[in-house]
Amino acid sequence: MKIIADLCIVPMGVGASVSRYIREVRDIIDASGLSYEMHPNGTNIEGEMAAVTATVEACCAKLHDMGVGRIFCTMSFSTRNDKHQTMADKLASLA
Amino acid sequence: MKIIADLCIVPMGVGASVSRYIREVRDIIDASGLSYEMHPNGTNIEGEMAAVTATVEACCAKLHDMGVGRIFCTMSFSTRNDKHQTMADKLASLA
Amino acid sequence: MKIIADLCIVPMGVGASVSRYIREVRDIIDASGLSYEMHPNGTNIEGEMAAVTATVEACCAKLHDMGVGRIFCTMSFSTRNDKHQTMADKLASLA
Amino acid sequence: MKIIADLCIVPMGVGASVSRYIREVRDIIDASGLSYEMHPNGTNIEGEMAAVTATVEACCAKLHDMGVGRIFCTMSFSTRNDKHQTMADKLASLA
Repeated sequence: MKIIADLCIVPMGVGASVSRYIREVRDIIDASGLSYEMHPNGTNIEGEMAAVTATVEACCAKLHDMGVGRIFCTMSFSTRNDKHQTMADKLASLA
Repeated sequence: MKIIADLCIVPMGVGASVSRYIREVRDIIDASGLSYEMHPNGTNIEGEMAAVTATVEACCAKLHDMGVGRIFCTMSFSTRNDKHQTMADKLASLA
Repeated sequence: MKIIADLCIVPMGVGASVSRYIREVRDIIDASGLSYEMHPNGTNIEGEMAAVTATVEACCAKLHDMGVGRIFCTMSFSTRNDKHQTMADKLASLA
Repeated sequence: MKIIADLCIVPMGVGASVSRYIREVRDIIDASGLSYEMHPNGTNIEGEMAAVTATVEACCAKLHDMGVGRIFCTMSFSTRNDKHQTMADKLASLA
């Protein structure tokens, strides 16, 4: 099932500045081959649900390996079977 | 990776009353064997991330089969490797 | 506007264990007089949107006062004007 | 309290295509004077929490006026008092 997700990964207990960890997350998402786009509050990702969630799990596993003891993660997504729609289509529909 | 998730599945375009669909979601979650608990705004589920996300995908697939053309879903979760913690442990820690 | 919200407040940078902070959050919500119910992944709150969000802001302000430099917060909510519905009604509709 | 929020407003029961409603939401946010940026899964907004939440409430009220009987809304945000940070700063810290 194809989804368009908005993902936010929050490392807990490692200080208020977390950009070091988010750069690792970005690298893993980038290597996944999934279509994505970072924004100030998260990352939009598009792809098969199993591929997206496996990538999210890989990101969390990497942060644990880096010493992050606890991670909070939000993922909201939509799926539709009434028509094909990409992230670009969603924005274009508002023009 | 074990996660404790808060899940909310929102069927779009099928009227304001969606309890018929949420009952189906509950039945699929119940049949998954995962530990879960419904609350007024969603469902808490606990288990391996791959099992939880496969169950969420099964719920969405079922709603599409029932004629829901578009679904919005939120899933927030936490994972920790500093200690083992269940949903019950989380509430108990506040007592 | 009346809303039924699911709230999760995540203190960042203060260690993996945050129950000390969540107890403060609970006390502030309790003192607000709003109808609420904690669950393993957050707190459901019901009331006028301005009252709910003022309470959430008071919780965040308290955590900052306690030394939490950064806070991540999720609040999902629903509002409907087609009928009156409480948190209890939502669960009852699934029976 | 200044927040940087990621907002998603989901009109329920009015069909799978909701761009007509999201354009109204955009107009209300635009008129608020708050700094914002739409992305494929939502809108990032920056400002005082009371101003942001009043704007979100105005959006929901408008949709109800347009005949949307039920609305689901997600708002995740962060607040920090350890340093001043804008949406642009957040993205820049990843470069």
